[in-house]
Amino acid sequence: MNRWEKAQPLSSALSQALARVTPVSESEEIPVSDAYGRVLAEEIFSPWDLPGFVRATMDGYAVRAQDTLNASREQPAILKVIGSVEMGQDPQTLPALQEFEAMEITTGGPLPPNADAVVMLEETERLSDSVKVFVPVKPGEHLLAADSDFQRGERVFYAGHRLRAVDIGALIALGRESVRVFQRVRVGVLSTGSELVSEGEPPPGKIRETNSYVLRGLIEAQSAQARCYPIVPDEKRSLRIAIERAVHENDFVLLSGGSSVGARDWTLEILQELGEVVVHGLQIRPGKPTLFALVAHKPVVGLPGNPVSCALVFEKFARPLIAKRSGVRVLLPSHRLVPARLLSRIESVKGREDFVAVRLKLDEETGALFAEPIYGHTNNISTLVRADGIVSVPADLEKIEAGLPVWVELL
Amino acid sequence: MNRWEKAQPLSSALSQALARVTPVSESEEIPVSDAYGRVLAEEIFSPWDLPGFVRATMDGYAVRAQDTLNASREQPAILKVIGSVEMGQDPQTLPALQEFEAMEITTGGPLPPNADAVVMLEETERLSDSVKVFVPVKPGEHLLAADSDFQRGERVFYAGHRLRAVDIGALIALGRESVRVFQRVRVGVLSTGSELVSEGEPPPGKIRETNSYVLRGLIEAQSAQARCYPIVPDEKRSLRIAIERAVHENDFVLLSGGSSVGARDWTLEILQELGEVVVHGLQIRPGKPTLFALVAHKPVVGLPGNPVSCALVFEKFARPLIAKRSGVRVLLPSHRLVPARLLSRIESVKGREDFVAVRLKLDEETGALFAEPIYGHTNNISTLVRADGIVSVPADLEKIEAGLPVWVELL
Repeated sequence: MNRWEKAQPLSSALSQALARVTPVSESEEIPVSDAYGRVLAEEIFSPWDLPGFVRATMDGYAVRAQDTLNASREQPAILKVIGSVEMGQDPQTLPALQEFEAMEITTGGPLPPNADAVVMLEETERLSDSVKVFVPVKPGEHLLAADSDFQRGERVFYAGHRLRAVDIGALIALGRESVRVFQRVRVGVLSTGSELVSEGEPPPGKIRETNSYVLRGLIEAQSAQARCYPIVPDEKRSLRIAIERAVHENDFVLLSGGSSVGARDWTLEILQELGEVVVHGLQIRPGKPTLFALVAHKPVVGLPGNPVSCALVFEKFARPLIAKRSGVRVLLPSHRLVPARLLSRIESVKGREDFVAVRLKLDEETGALFAEPIYGHTNNISTLVRADGIVSVPADLEKIEAGLPVWVELL
Repeated sequence: MNRWEKAQPLSSALSQALARVTPVSESEEIPVSDAYGRVLAEEIFSPWDLPGFVRATMDGYAVRAQDTLNASREQPAILKVIGSVEMGQDPQTLPALQEFEAMEITTGGPLPPNADAVVMLEETERLSDSVKVFVPVKPGEHLLAADSDFQRGERVFYAGHRLRAVDIGALIALGRESVRVFQRVRVGVLSTGSELVSEGEPPPGKIRETNSYVLRGLIEAQSAQARCYPIVPDEKRSLRIAIERAVHENDFVLLSGGSSVGARDWTLEILQELGEVVVHGLQIRPGKPTLFALVAHKPVVGLPGNPVSCALVFEKFARPLIAKRSGVRVLLPSHRLVPARLLSRIESVKGREDFVAVRLKLDEETGALFAEPIYGHTNNISTLVRADGIVSVPADLEKIEAGLPVWVELL
């Protein structure tokens, strides 16, 4: 008997699942300053040239390039300094440079009329009301064009872009006060298992439900909304009602599996009855008993019940699916990786990708990082608590020897 | 003239600055479910053994190991099945196994009295009221001890640990409803520059202030509080009053520098008058004009004014300082790195660490990632908007050739 004979490699399972996930259709207009981490539901074009005026990129003197022709240390050009450009001044209020005139200017300052280049301060020597220029400059030298940051009409963001802190700055620079973003994906979280209790010290035989707390943190880090439901007992009818309700009330559902054989089989049966099961098992460890189904066109992921597998499968499998459901168009890898050297050998099995928890150890003297495998059981949340990150052993490797460099994905 | 002759490498500047930053002293008791990303201000010990009872790690049969001695496929041990362990059952309510008795059990189920091992389902064959066991098991096999997750009295977290999603799960498992954490660090953000406007389309010569929006997002991602102040004009007295006020009202201050020569010099002068300037320039590009000072024992970082340098120096220099001020005890590297191959050569200068913005390009067929350098100006926020990440060229390299593998730190 093999419940998971249809288990497949993570990458193919993820492609298949991603192909079946559609972005939520609802969007909302929100203030730009609330839009960190949200996903754009509109294209953004620049309404004007930015910065909108020609700026100096160096401290020095605004000049007419032709007046510096043939200037050298021996035979400097001597220009009359007719004033100083103040930061933020309207360039139209500045005097236009005449032949052999210059103005003091600082980085970011607007170029006065007729000037077409800036000479760096280091290439000059100030006299009382004039300046010696020791090098020739070309037109445009040490300048930023009026449309160097953004051109009027240019597309700055495509729809489906997740806004980072720098992007919020750009939206502000483009004069946006509000922006249309996809609604936060509502992710229903159902933990199942008669052994679970939701508060206090668990009586003998029971354990405290923790997966919903872990999942909530991971979901909210995706700018999605976590909605945790009461624990579902290992009983098929209750489980079916709970799944139907969670699907109805959310855009995405995570089931954190009951560990009993019955609960596991029921989850599969119910998902088959209610919709279509697309992925039935992953060739990874931990994380084999993972399901992906569509119910009423909504994605449902069945995560393994034990804490380590649950968190890992969320990260490796559910997170990109939630991102796509959130409207994200291009899924770049978004690992948090640090390089380290392995402190002791990791053994694995060919044909299955293994994930091993590791603790990082910093050698204070050399600054070198070492990764020490932690072989806690996947049933134990302490395995993750003691770990700083995860090392992957690809399916085609049987082991990674001590001393080899590895990449650690931080928890 | 060299305003930045005291510029030093990033790593030594950071060590010096870190040595002078102390954690905030205030802490608060908050619900565990609000503590994601916060920093523990207390040590956490386990109040009990977890899981508190012996659990099966496999589906199969709970047995007395001695009854399976010498069992083999040819000569299986035959055990009487006296029942089935339900998930979550109090083990004291289960019947104690007598000689040659067994109970059905599933992963996570509590071991009945007298049982000391579990035989995997795959190693058995069920008869009507008995089971054939084909292998001997040792005492403890396929079991998790009652204290395998945490031992009573064990220290689970040290003070100064930043709580991740998995850690919240562990606190819940330990029965914690609330937890003592350091207060969020209040980070005052001052943007200076007469060329800056705070709303609408900037008139000619002015630009819209954006650094405070970018910094706010980066600060809040650290679970710190950003408090943005009105733009300070390039005028020494105003700047001094604004800095004194920001230092008074916050635990940490970020100045996003005026670009005028005057403003830059005034910032240095004021910090020297009010406190002690510890770092005066970094040997990196962009980011050279960076200051670190202590004013009234509070850290003050002077960031370069242009958007690219400002965001980069925040990440490389200010972020770890804010983490230490937040109470974080061990600063692990927390990069978001992805491997890619360089699409075109990056040139650099020895003795200075260069940071180059890159766009990632995914080869759809092979899944390979390529990094294309973007040589936008640091004055332009578009440089970052168009970039997916940053590639570092260490100070001892003059270039990185096209085709070489590089690590891209995601924005």
